[in-house]
Order: sequence, then structure tokens, then C-alpha cells
Amino acid sequence: MNIEEKIKKGHKRTCARLITMLESNDNEAIEIIKSHYKSTGGAYVIGVTGPPGAGKSTLTDKLAKELLKQNKKIGIIAIDPTSPFSGGAILGDRIRMNDLSLNKNVFIRSMGTRGSLGGMSNATWGATKILDIFGYDYIFIETVGVGQSEVDIVKTADTVLMVMVPNLGDDIQAIKAGIMEIADVFAINKSDLDGADKTKVEVEMNLDLNEDMDYRPPVVKVSASKNEDIDVLLENILAHRKYLEDTKQLKENRIRNNKLELLKMVEEDLMSLILDRAVKDDLLDKLAKDITLKETDPYTAKETIIRLIRNNP
Amino acid sequence: MNIEEKIKKGHKRTCARLITMLESNDNEAIEIIKSHYKSTGGAYVIGVTGPPGAGKSTLTDKLAKELLKQNKKIGIIAIDPTSPFSGGAILGDRIRMNDLSLNKNVFIRSMGTRGSLGGMSNATWGATKILDIFGYDYIFIETVGVGQSEVDIVKTADTVLMVMVPNLGDDIQAIKAGIMEIADVFAINKSDLDGADKTKVEVEMNLDLNEDMDYRPPVVKVSASKNEDIDVLLENILAHRKYLEDTKQLKENRIRNNKLELLKMVEEDLMSLILDRAVKDDLLDKLAKDITLKETDPYTAKETIIRLIRNNP
Repeated sequence: MNIEEKIKKGHKRTCARLITMLESNDNEAIEIIKSHYKSTGGAYVIGVTGPPGAGKSTLTDKLAKELLKQNKKIGIIAIDPTSPFSGGAILGDRIRMNDLSLNKNVFIRSMGTRGSLGGMSNATWGATKILDIFGYDYIFIETVGVGQSEVDIVKTADTVLMVMVPNLGDDIQAIKAGIMEIADVFAINKSDLDGADKTKVEVEMNLDLNEDMDYRPPVVKVSASKNEDIDVLLENILAHRKYLEDTKQLKENRIRNNKLELLKMVEEDLMSLILDRAVKDDLLDKLAKDITLKETDPYTAKETIIRLIRNNP
Repeated sequence: MNIEEKIKKGHKRTCARLITMLESNDNEAIEIIKSHYKSTGGAYVIGVTGPPGAGKSTLTDKLAKELLKQNKKIGIIAIDPTSPFSGGAILGDRIRMNDLSLNKNVFIRSMGTRGSLGGMSNATWGATKILDIFGYDYIFIETVGVGQSEVDIVKTADTVLMVMVPNLGDDIQAIKAGIMEIADVFAINKSDLDGADKTKVEVEMNLDLNEDMDYRPPVVKVSASKNEDIDVLLENILAHRKYLEDTKQLKENRIRNNKLELLKMVEEDLMSLILDRAVKDDLLDKLAKDITLKETDPYTAKETIIRLIRNNP
């Protein structure tokens, strides 16, 4: 079976292999995306975010099962915020062990954050394109909504689902406040806990502050572990999709997101050019040492590198 | 009083103004750092990280008070992970309201994360240089240790203090695993809670896995709110400093950190060059639209921009 047939049949192993290749910036995977780009756009991307401990994975699984009932193909990409050094995906095993992964219409993938110079965001984005090409209808991107880079990833989804739980301590208020602006649907998970109603009211009050909304994000209490009201939550997500489609906002949002992604891709490419050159010349090491010994200052050192890049493109 | 006198006197308002200027990339602040760069290096930077709700702010305040007893000048920079859009610093008010900020030997500043194209890290780094120039002996950088960009910031500190609490739920295990590699000292906060000993044992066991350590990070149980064992924790932090100084590792680490910072500064500069050009030509908007309409694909679009930059440096 050649690659085109595998794509047509939605061959899961090929899909997985292409995503792995993409993670190492392999050209073959990039060429596949390029040559099949016209067939993309069918997949609908749902970003799932929220503080640690909110039960995002369980809730995502339950939503996926609900969509399976509608004969949809589901992709799940879990962004693993751990291990910036080893590049490992610690959450991966936990996720892969669940029963969903055995379903032929479900593709689950855990992607670790890698080196400090980025790349995670582009690889995630590329992975959604590959899943799109392989015919997945819904793609969940699940991430811990605390860090800047994680927020950057989730905000390029078509619908952003913010998962919250009652009583998560001090800092949570602040995180909530920061991420509320990008959420399209709120889920208050662990609805049986004391404080669930209070949390719902807090979110609603926060939403009240924003008066000129055409679309008001719904706030839905659910219990992922008890499988309660998952259908209601899904209806709300699909209603948001319908709203975006009816008002043509989906296209506008995707233009905005493609712009952000494009900038990041350019950034990543330029940085590897810089690294290649600066590492080759030992220039970076020399300048870092000079800065530490105070023989130069960081701003002057930066100008040296920029000049080098611009004069030798 | 001219600026040199203000610097010599450690004028707090001038220091605050320079950091604000730095946040908007103002040249005057950069020139101050450049011209005083030789006088830096005296400040010792302590990164404080840990999951949301671990009590990092309170613990930082208590450590600062302990250092005040030794007649040190303390700077505290709180990285606010919230509000990637408004650039606001929501935690700021809470922090600024505390009594420490009235002490003439303490400077407290909250810095918000800004636009998705970075800048937070460089501004934080610049702020530590300004505090260094103004004669601060210890600088705490406090951040929520979950996201990639936050980890990037904290790992450039001289000593990284990881604050943990018992029983913080599922994802915490993963976060812990990711960040353990960069921690030099562990604090188990809320030591009176059930599970504090268990958490300590878990951390110790994790450390046991790493056999070839010259330096083994200590794990200290504390209660920030009850002000218990803060002195013990500080002793452990200062012992790490002494270890780094005695083994000359402090200098090596600073070279490594300066290299990372230099790369980020170059990255940020290049990105603003790209943005300037691409925004001016409406090129970015056009390409983003073409990608969405599938008249081009993202990789080809990226190559178009890269070619433009390299051919017109």
C-alpha cells in the first residue's frame, strides 16, 4: 500500500509515524502536508485547557466517547508540559493506556515540550494538519492552561474549552482571570463537590463584566468521572461551532490563527539559522563568556550577532 | 539629583521607572544597563517556582524578611502568568499591598506576561540587571512552574527553589517530574498538612535515582504561613550558593545562562524586524488569508517570508 492509499484509508500507524517525523522537522512529513493541504479544513479543533488537577484528560475522553456515538473520528493531542530537558512525554503512558486508544476511530498522541527555543507549537499545529488530512473530524488539543506557550497553543483552536474545578487555591483565581478571555465554553468539573455552584457564579459574574458580547460563553457543570452532563457540554461546544459558522467568524478566526502560526514558523526557522551560524563559529560561547566577564554587555553582544545575520543572509 | 546620584543612592522610584521603560524596550533604560554593566554581578538571583497554590509568594516574603535581618537589600520580581492579552499584572496588587513593600530595603515588582511573541523573559532579565546596578543583594524571581516560558525564566537563576505542597492532585506529579531537574533546593510548604512527610519522601526517592550528583538538593519542610523553619530553608539556599562559589560553578552557570539570554534577545530583535517589515507590506495578512483559502500552504508561505528577510537584510 503506498502512502496515498494509507492516507485514504486513514492508516493510524502511518499517521503516527508522520507526526513523529514532524516533531523532528522531517521533510517528508512537511511535503505530505504541503501536497495535501487543499484537502484540509474539515477537522474542527477543540482546545481543552484549565489548571492542573481539573480533570481535563478524563473530560476529554468522555467528550470523545460522546462524539464516537455520532460516528465521528476523533484525534486527541495531549501537550505535556513536563520535562523541558529530556523532551519526554511523561503523561503519555497514562493517556495511552486508556481504552479509547484501542478504538479504530480514535487517535491519541502525547507531545512533550521540547528545548527552550520553541518548536512545540509548530509541531502541534502540524499534527492537527496531519490528523485533518487523515480524515479526523474533531481534534482535541489538551494542555495545562498556565504557561504562556501553552496558552498560545490552545488559543489557536476553533473552540476553547476551559475546565475548572472548585477550591483550587489562591493562584487559580489569577490563572482563571488570565485565561477567561480566550475561553468559548466553560466546564465546571467535579460538579458534586462543595463549591461547584460558587465557582459557576464567579465565572458568570466575570462574564457579566463584558457587556458587549455577541456570543456569551456558556458555563456548564459536569462530572467527568461520573459521566454526568457530558452530552450537555458537547451540545454547548457544537452550538459554539454553529455560531462561528453562521456568522462567518470561523473563517476570520482561522485567518488570525494562521497568521500567528506563520509568524512562529518563521521565528523557528530563523532561530535555527542563527544557531547554526553562531554555534559553528563558537561566537555564541565567546560572547556569553565575555558578558559574564563583563568584557562586553548583553545588548552590545546582541547587536554583534544581529549585524552578522543581516550582513550574511 | 542626576541619574548617577540616584543610582548611587538606590533611589527606588528611579529603579521602578527604569524597569517600566525596559518593559517597553526603551533605549534610555538599555543605555543605563550598558553603561553600568561592569558594576553588575553582585546580586544573587533566587528563582522560586512550584505549582499554583503552593504558597510561593508567602514563602518568598518570609525568606526576604529573614535576609533583611542580615542587612541585605532584597528585590522581588513576581512573574504574572495571567492575562496574555491585556498584559496586566493581576497578582500585582496582592503583592504590593503587603508590608514588605514599605521597607526601604525591599523592592517588589510584578511583571505580566505580554504578547505571544515573547519579551517577558528579556524584560525579567533586564530587570534583574537594573536591581543589580541599584545595589540589591538578593533578587527573587517568583513564577508558577508549569509553562515552558516560565521554566525558561526560572532556570536562569543562580539557585532554583522549588516549592511544593502535599496533595495537589494528579497533574502535579508530572509537573514535579518536569521541574525537578532544575531545582537546587526543595521546600515542602504547609508542613503541618497530612502528607507532607510523604511528599518529602517522594522527592527524596526521586533524587535517589540520580546517583552521580556532586551536589544533592536538600528537601526542607517549612510552614510559610506559620513562619516555621524559614531560617533552615535560607541556610540551605545559602549553602547552595557557597557550593557554587567554592566549585567555580557559579561562573560557569552564569556563562550558560548568558548564552540562553543572548539567544532570546537576538530572537526577539529579529522577530520585531520581521513584524515591522511584514506588517508594513500587509504581507503577513495576505499570506494568512491565502493559507486559509488554501491558495498556498503554510510551509510555502513561510519560505516566502524567510526569502524576503534574507534577501533584504
